[in-house]
Amino acid sequence: MFFHRQELQFKSTPDQPDAVYARKLQEVLGGQYGEITVAMQYMFQGWNMHTPGKYRDLVFGVGAEEVGHVEMLATMIAQLLEKAPLGITDDAVQDDPTVAAVIGGTDIQQAIVAGAGARAVDSMGNPWQGSYITASGNLLADFQANANAEMQGRVQVARLYHMTDDHGVRDLLSFLLARDTMHQNMWLAAAAELREEGAEDLPVPSNFPQGKEHTEVSYQYLNFSDGQTAAEGSWAQGPTPDGHGEFTYHDGPTTSAPMPSPTRPDARFYGTTDLPNAVEKLAGRAQDKLKRE
Amino acid sequence: MFFHRQELQFKSTPDQPDAVYARKLQEVLGGQYGEITVAMQYMFQGWNMHTPGKYRDLVFGVGAEEVGHVEMLATMIAQLLEKAPLGITDDAVQDDPTVAAVIGGTDIQQAIVAGAGARAVDSMGNPWQGSYITASGNLLADFQANANAEMQGRVQVARLYHMTDDHGVRDLLSFLLARDTMHQNMWLAAAAELREEGAEDLPVPSNFPQGKEHTEVSYQYLNFSDGQTAAEGSWAQGPTPDGHGEFTYHDGPTTSAPMPSPTRPDARFYGTTDLPNAVEKLAGRAQDKLKRE
Amino acid sequence: MFFHRQELQFKSTPDQPDAVYARKLQEVLGGQYGEITVAMQYMFQGWNMHTPGKYRDLVFGVGAEEVGHVEMLATMIAQLLEKAPLGITDDAVQDDPTVAAVIGGTDIQQAIVAGAGARAVDSMGNPWQGSYITASGNLLADFQANANAEMQGRVQVARLYHMTDDHGVRDLLSFLLARDTMHQNMWLAAAAELREEGAEDLPVPSNFPQGKEHTEVSYQYLNFSDGQTAAEGSWAQGPTPDGHGEFTYHDGPTTSAPMPSPTRPDARFYGTTDLPNAVEKLAGRAQDKLKRE
Amino acid sequence: MFFHRQELQFKSTPDQPDAVYARKLQEVLGGQYGEITVAMQYMFQGWNMHTPGKYRDLVFGVGAEEVGHVEMLATMIAQLLEKAPLGITDDAVQDDPTVAAVIGGTDIQQAIVAGAGARAVDSMGNPWQGSYITASGNLLADFQANANAEMQGRVQVARLYHMTDDHGVRDLLSFLLARDTMHQNMWLAAAAELREEGAEDLPVPSNFPQGKEHTEVSYQYLNFSDGQTAAEGSWAQGPTPDGHGEFTYHDGPTTSAPMPSPTRPDARFYGTTDLPNAVEKLAGRAQDKLKRE
Amino acid sequence: MFFHRQELQFKSTPDQPDAVYARKLQEVLGGQYGEITVAMQYMFQGWNMHTPGKYRDLVFGVGAEEVGHVEMLATMIAQLLEKAPLGITDDAVQDDPTVAAVIGGTDIQQAIVAGAGARAVDSMGNPWQGSYITASGNLLADFQANANAEMQGRVQVARLYHMTDDHGVRDLLSFLLARDTMHQNMWLAAAAELREEGAEDLPVPSNFPQGKEHTEVSYQYLNFSDGQTAAEGSWAQGPTPDGHGEFTYHDGPTTSAPMPSPTRPDARFYGTTDLPNAVEKLAGRAQDKLKRE
Amino acid sequence: MFFHRQELQFKSTPDQPDAVYARKLQEVLGGQYGEITVAMQYMFQGWNMHTPGKYRDLVFGVGAEEVGHVEMLATMIAQLLEKAPLGITDDAVQDDPTVAAVIGGTDIQQAIVAGAGARAVDSMGNPWQGSYITASGNLLADFQANANAEMQGRVQVARLYHMTDDHGVRDLLSFLLARDTMHQNMWLAAAAELREEGAEDLPVPSNFPQGKEHTEVSYQYLNFSDGQTAAEGSWAQGPTPDGHGEFTYHDGPTTSAPMPSPTRPDARFYGTTDLPNAVEKLAGRAQDKLKRE
Repeated sequence: MFFHRQELQFKSTPDQPDAVYARKLQEVLGGQYGEITVAMQYMFQGWNMHTPGKYRDLVFGVGAEEVGHVEMLATMIAQLLEKAPLGITDDAVQDDPTVAAVIGGTDIQQAIVAGAGARAVDSMGNPWQGSYITASGNLLADFQANANAEMQGRVQVARLYHMTDDHGVRDLLSFLLARDTMHQNMWLAAAAELREEGAEDLPVPSNFPQGKEHTEVSYQYLNFSDGQTAAEGSWAQGPTPDGHGEFTYHDGPTTSAPMPSPTRPDARFYGTTDLPNAVEKLAGRAQDKLKRE
Repeated sequence: MFFHRQELQFKSTPDQPDAVYARKLQEVLGGQYGEITVAMQYMFQGWNMHTPGKYRDLVFGVGAEEVGHVEMLATMIAQLLEKAPLGITDDAVQDDPTVAAVIGGTDIQQAIVAGAGARAVDSMGNPWQGSYITASGNLLADFQANANAEMQGRVQVARLYHMTDDHGVRDLLSFLLARDTMHQNMWLAAAAELREEGAEDLPVPSNFPQGKEHTEVSYQYLNFSDGQTAAEGSWAQGPTPDGHGEFTYHDGPTTSAPMPSPTRPDARFYGTTDLPNAVEKLAGRAQDKLKRE
Repeated sequence: MFFHRQELQFKSTPDQPDAVYARKLQEVLGGQYGEITVAMQYMFQGWNMHTPGKYRDLVFGVGAEEVGHVEMLATMIAQLLEKAPLGITDDAVQDDPTVAAVIGGTDIQQAIVAGAGARAVDSMGNPWQGSYITASGNLLADFQANANAEMQGRVQVARLYHMTDDHGVRDLLSFLLARDTMHQNMWLAAAAELREEGAEDLPVPSNFPQGKEHTEVSYQYLNFSDGQTAAEGSWAQGPTPDGHGEFTYHDGPTTSAPMPSPTRPDARFYGTTDLPNAVEKLAGRAQDKLKRE
Repeated sequence: MFFHRQELQFKSTPDQPDAVYARKLQEVLGGQYGEITVAMQYMFQGWNMHTPGKYRDLVFGVGAEEVGHVEMLATMIAQLLEKAPLGITDDAVQDDPTVAAVIGGTDIQQAIVAGAGARAVDSMGNPWQGSYITASGNLLADFQANANAEMQGRVQVARLYHMTDDHGVRDLLSFLLARDTMHQNMWLAAAAELREEGAEDLPVPSNFPQGKEHTEVSYQYLNFSDGQTAAEGSWAQGPTPDGHGEFTYHDGPTTSAPMPSPTRPDARFYGTTDLPNAVEKLAGRAQDKLKRE
Repeated sequence: MFFHRQELQFKSTPDQPDAVYARKLQEVLGGQYGEITVAMQYMFQGWNMHTPGKYRDLVFGVGAEEVGHVEMLATMIAQLLEKAPLGITDDAVQDDPTVAAVIGGTDIQQAIVAGAGARAVDSMGNPWQGSYITASGNLLADFQANANAEMQGRVQVARLYHMTDDHGVRDLLSFLLARDTMHQNMWLAAAAELREEGAEDLPVPSNFPQGKEHTEVSYQYLNFSDGQTAAEGSWAQGPTPDGHGEFTYHDGPTTSAPMPSPTRPDARFYGTTDLPNAVEKLAGRAQDKLKRE
Repeated sequence: MFFHRQELQFKSTPDQPDAVYARKLQEVLGGQYGEITVAMQYMFQGWNMHTPGKYRDLVFGVGAEEVGHVEMLATMIAQLLEKAPLGITDDAVQDDPTVAAVIGGTDIQQAIVAGAGARAVDSMGNPWQGSYITASGNLLADFQANANAEMQGRVQVARLYHMTDDHGVRDLLSFLLARDTMHQNMWLAAAAELREEGAEDLPVPSNFPQGKEHTEVSYQYLNFSDGQTAAEGSWAQGPTPDGHGEFTYHDGPTTSAPMPSPTRPDARFYGTTDLPNAVEKLAGRAQDKLKRE
C-alpha cells in the first residue's frame, strides 16, 4: 500500500515563469529515463521479486521515493507555466521579441490539454510508456539496468542545469543530482553485494550451464568494421571480467554458414514463389503471341 | 558504409517447423532487448561519439555484427514458419489436437502480413521502436546501458533455450548465448578502461562539479517503505563505489518542504480556479431562489 | 511524498496457478482503464489543480490508494504465473491436453521478459502509455472523466469475474468491484458538488461566454444518418440539461458552406498543382506528335 | 454506408495564413479528444451496439457529423498553411523578425511530409491512435465517456479561441463550441434516459449482482493522503448517487492483508531465487579463501 | 460533409460464430493496410489536394466507400463474437477440446474491453495509428502509395480467405477482393493519367530540376552485397523507366569520402570528449603511484 | 553478415552549424519514409523472400546501401549540432535575436538525451517504428511499396533542399536525390520484370483465382461523393490496367444489404441489451410511484 503526505521532499519553486523550460523538464519527468520510469521500474521489480528481505525492501523504498520526485517535477512545471502567455496574439508577446522568440519552444499540450500543467510525456511530447521499464526477475541484470537509468538520468539533469539560471529550478536540480549520485552508487553496491553473496554472477544469468553455449566464441572479439584500433582495448586481450576466460582478437568472423535455401511456404500465402510455373506461363504466352501474329 | 555477405555467421536451420516458437523468437529479434536494439544502439553511439579511435571502432564493429544476428533470427523464423498451417480449417489441424492446441499461440501477422515470415516486432506483436535505444554521448553511461542490454538479452535467450528441444534452434541459441557472454564481458571491460584512463568516472557524468549538487543527500539511503532489512545492505553503510563518500541510513526523508500554493494560470485556460466568484454566484443564486419563493 | 507499507489492502492469493488468466488480468492493471491509468490520472489532476482544499485532498488520497491496487494485481499475477510451464516441450504440457490447450493464451513476455511476473502492459501486450490519462485543470470535465474511468473499469472487472472460478481471484475482484462502486459514486458526488457550489457548470467550461459560440446550433439535434428513431429521444426535444435551452430536431445539417478552393502552396513543396502548365505541356506534346507523323 | 457531399457544414476560411496556429489546430483534429476520436468512437459504439432503435440512430447520426468536423478542421489547416514559408532561409523570414520568431512553432511534418497540409496527428505530432476511443457495449458507461469527450473537447476549443484573433478561425471555433454544447447536453440527456428507462443504472454495470462485491467497502471514503479536508465533501457522508448506500469517511484503509511470500518460479526462468544455494556457495568460497591463506 | 445510410454495401453475416477468426479479421479492419487506413488516407489526400476536379472527386468518393468497408468488417466481427464463450471455465469450453484449443487465439480485448465487439486495432492488438497513412500533396507519389495499399490489402484478404470455410465470411471477402481489384486498377490508371497529362512524371517530384541532383549516380546500380545475379536484372542495364537515362552496374560504391572528425560539442553536454585531459590525469595518477611505491 | 567500412558513401559536412535544420533532417533519417525504413524494409524482404537469385541479391544490395545513408545523415546531424547553444540563457542567444528565434525549433532530445547527436526518431520526435516497413513475401506488391517509399522520400528531400542554403547540406541532399531517382527507376523496372516473367501480375496476388471474387463489382467505379467529374477519368471507362476488364461508372453503390440485427452476446458481458426487462422494470417503477402518491 502507498500513502501520500502533502509535503515535497525538497523545495520546488522557480524564481519566475519559463514556459520553454517547463517543456524541457518534461524529459526528466516523463522521458525514457525520467522519474516515472525509475518509479515504475523499481516497483515492478519489487512485485516480481523472488526473494524476501533487503533487496525487496530496497526497491520498494526507492520506488516510493521516486514517485515523490515525479511530484516535485510536476509541481515545478505547473509553476513555470503559471503565467504562460496563451499565444502569439497576446500583447505581452507582441511587445517583447524575447517572449515571441520562445513561443515556438513551448509544449502546446501543456497549454491546450493540461491548462498550463504537467503531462505524462517527454520533452518532445511522446507519452510515457510501459516499455521503458525493466524488471526481469534476475537481480544482477536489473540492478545493472537501474545503475544505467540513474546514470542516464544524471547526465540529463546535468545538461538541464546549464539550460537555465533560475535559482529555484537549479536548487531542485541540485537535489535531484545528489539523489542520482546516491542511487548510482547504491545500485552498483547492490550489484556487487549480489555477486559477493553468490546469488548471481557473470555472465548473467550465471546459473545457465555455460557448457551449453558455443564456447569457442565466448571470449572472441570479432571485428566487423575496418578500424584497427579496437585491437588495443582491454576487451581484445587479457582476462575477462567474469573470471572464466581470456579475450582474443579476430579480424572478422571466426565462423560462417551458407544461407539456407529460401523458404517455400504454402501457396495460399500468395508469396512470389513459382518461378518454374512462371517459365511455363511465359512459354504459353509466347505461343499465344505467335498464334496472334 | 555497410556491406552484406550472403552467408550467415552461424548455422541457422531448425529440425522442423514450429509456428508457436517462431513467435517467441520475435522477442530477441525485435523486442526491447532484441538484436535490432543492440545493432541500432551501437551504431548510433558510433555516429554520436566525440572521440576517434578504439571506442568508436568498438561500437562500429559490434554494431555490424549485431545486424547479422538480426539476419540469423529472421532466417530461422522464416524456416520455422515454412510449413505453418494457414488456419483452423486445415486438415492437418483438425486431425491433430496438438497442432490445434497451438493455433492460438501463433503470431497472426507473421501469417497474414508477412506471408510466413519474420517481422520487426516483439513476441506480443509490438513494433520495434527507436525509443528502445540509448546513445547519450557519455560513454561510461552508454557502456553501462550496453552491458545491461547484453545481460537482459542473455537472460531472455536462456529462457528461450528451455522452451524448445529442437536441435537446430538450440544450436543457434547456444551461439547467441556465447556472443552475449562475450559482449557482457566486453562492455564491462570497456567501462573499466574508461575509468582507468580517467576519461570518465563515477558518479556519471564525472565532470559535473559535485559541489553544485545538494551534497547533504548525496550518500544517504532514505527508506520510504516500512521494511527494516534494507539497512543491512552495503548501500546503507560503508564507503561508496565512487570513492567520494560514506553511505548512511535514514528511515524516511531527511529533507522536506511545504507544497507550494496551487497555481492560478490565466483565466482563459478555463481551469477551475474562481471559487471566490463561485461564492458570489451562489449568493446570487440563493437570492434568486428566495425571490421565486 | 509517497510512502510504502509492505502490506496489501486486501488478500490477493489465488487457489492455483493460471497463466492464461494472468494475461487477462493485465487489462485492469495496465490497460486504457486499468489501475495505472486511474492512479496516474488522479495524481496528475492533483499536481495540476488550481484550488487547495477538499478537491485536491480527494485526488491525492484516491490516487495513492490506486497505486496500491496496481500492487495487488501485480502480486496476484506473479502468483498465477508461479508454476507456469516454460513451454510446449514440458512434460506437464505434453501429458495434459488441457494445459496444452491454453499455451496459446499466455502472455509470452510475462515469461520471457519478466521471468514469470507482471508487466506494465494490457492484456494484448500494449505498453501502458501516458496518453491514457486526463488532467485538464477543469474539474467538472475531469471528474466526468474519472466517473467514466471507474465505470469502464468496473465493467471490465465484472467481465473478468465470470472468466474464472478461482476463489482467491474472485475475492480480489469482489474487492475491486466494491471500490469501483465507491469511486463511481464519489466522482459523481464531487461533480454535483462543483455545480452546486457554482465553481463550474454546464456546458463545460461554463465561464466561456456562450454569446461567443454560434448559438443557432447550440441545441439542435442534426441527423446525419437515415434512421428516424433518434427523433424520439429526450435529446431531440424538451429542456436541455444545462438549463439554458430547448432541444430541436433537424433531419440533416441546418448550415452549410461551399468548400473553399483548393490551396496552392509554394511550388517548392512539389505538390501537384500546375495543371495549367500541364495543359501547355500536353499541347506541346501533341504538336511534337503531329510533327513526327 | 457513408456518402460524402462536397460542402462543408460551416464556413471555414481564415483571414490570413498562420502556420503556428495550423499546428495548434491539430490538437482538436487528431488529439486524444479531437474530432477523429469522437467520430470513430461513436461509429464503433454503433457497430458494437446490442439494441436497435433510437440509441443506435443517435451514435450513427452524430458519428457521421463528426467526420465532417474533421473535414472542416483539415480544410482550415491547409488554408492556414497555404502561404507558409519553407524555412529560415526565406527572405520573408529573414526580413521579418516576427515571422522568424514563429518558425520554431510550426509542425515540421505539415511541411515536409504533407506539403503544407493537415495530418492525422495531435499538436505535438503524435499520430492519432485507436486506443483513444471507448466502445464497451455498456451504453451508460459509454455515454459517460462521450459526455467527457465533448467536455474535454470544448475546453480545448475554448482555449484555442483565445490563441488567435483571426475572424475566420474564430468563426469556425464558435461553431464547434456550439456543437460541443449540444453534444454535452445530448449525451447527458441520453444517459439520463437510459437510467429512466431502467436499461442501465448505477453502479455501472448495474446488472452485476452487488451481493458479489465486497460490500463492506462499497461506500467508504478511504483517505490515503494526510489532508483532512476531503472529509468535508459530499463523498464522505450522506446518501450515495446510486441510491443504494451512505458514504462514510475513514482515515486510511479499513482492510489489510500481509503480502504473500515472494513467488519461486521454475529455476529455468533464471530469476534470482536460490539464496540458499548462495549461502552454500559462500561457505565454499570462504573455505577456499582459508585454504589459500 | 458525410452522411450515413443504415444499410451495408454487401451482405455481411457469418454462418456461425468464430472468435478466433474475429481476431484475424481485425487485421484488414485496423491494421497497417486495413480499411481504416485507406479510408483516412484517401480523405486526407482530398483535404490536402491542390487541384479541383476529377482527382479530388476520386479520392472523396473512394474514401467514403472505404468507411463503409470498415463498417462491414466491424459488423461481421461483432457477429462472429456473438456467442463467444467468456473463458476457460465455461462448460462449453470444458466439454469440447476444439473450443478449448482456440481459447488462446482470441483477442482478449474484444471480450473484456468491447464486450464482444470490434476494435480499432490490428490482429495482434496494436491500435490503428495516424502514421499509417500517406498524403503528401504530390499525386503521383500518393497514387503509387494507394496502389500499394490496395495490393497489400488484397494479398491479406486472399490469405484470410483460406483461413475459414464459413460461407458468410467468404462472401464478404469475395466482395472485398473484387473491390481491391477495382481499386488497384483505378489507382494505376489514375497514375498513368497524371503522367499522360503532364501533371507529374518520373522521377517524382518531376518538377525538381534534375540538374541539381548529383547526376553521376542517378542511374547506377551499386551492389553492396556479394551476390552477382542482380547484374542480370533490367535495373542493371538498358533504358530507365523515367526515359532520362541508362542503367549501369557497379560492384560496390562509385563514390566515397572519409568520415569527418568526431564532433566536440559544448563541454556542458558532458559527452565523453576530453581524452587529452584524460592523458594528463593518467600521467598524474602514474606519478602518484610512483610516489606511493 | 554485414561489414562496416569507416568511410562515407559521399561527403557529408555542413558549412556551419544549424540546430533547427538538424531537427528537420531527422525526418529523412527516422521518419515513416526515412532511410531507416527503406534499409529495414529491403532487408526484411530479403529474409522473407521465397526465391533465390537476382531479386534477393537486389534487396540485400540496396538494403546495405541504405544503412550507409542512415550513417551519412546521422553524421551530418551531429555536425549541424556541434556548436548548438545549450539554451536560452546562453550569451550567444541573448545577444542575437536570430539565434533566439530558432530556439523553439530545435529537437530538445537531440540536446538533452543524445548530447548534441542524432536520434532514431522523425522531425517531430516520434520514435522510428517497425510498423513503417512492408515485407509481404509477394514481390510485385512489395516492389510497388518500395517505389512508393522512394517517391515519398525524394519528395521530402526535395522539400528539405529548399529549406537551407548551406552548400554542404545541399551537396548531401543532391546525392540522396540522385540515389532516390535511381531507386524509383529500379523498383519500377523490377516490378515490370516480374510481370514480364510471369512471376506475378495484376491484380495482386495474381494467383488467387479471380472467379472466387465477386466479379460483378471488380471493375465498377462507385461514386460515394456528389462530385461528377470523377466520371471523366480513365478509371471510369475503357480497359483496365490488368487487361481483364472494362471500367464502368456508377453513381453510388450497385449492391446493398440490410444491416444485420444487433448482436446479443452473453449477458455476462454486461452490455446494454435487456430493454425488455427494462420495460418490466419501468412498469414496476410506475406502480411504485402510483402507490406512493
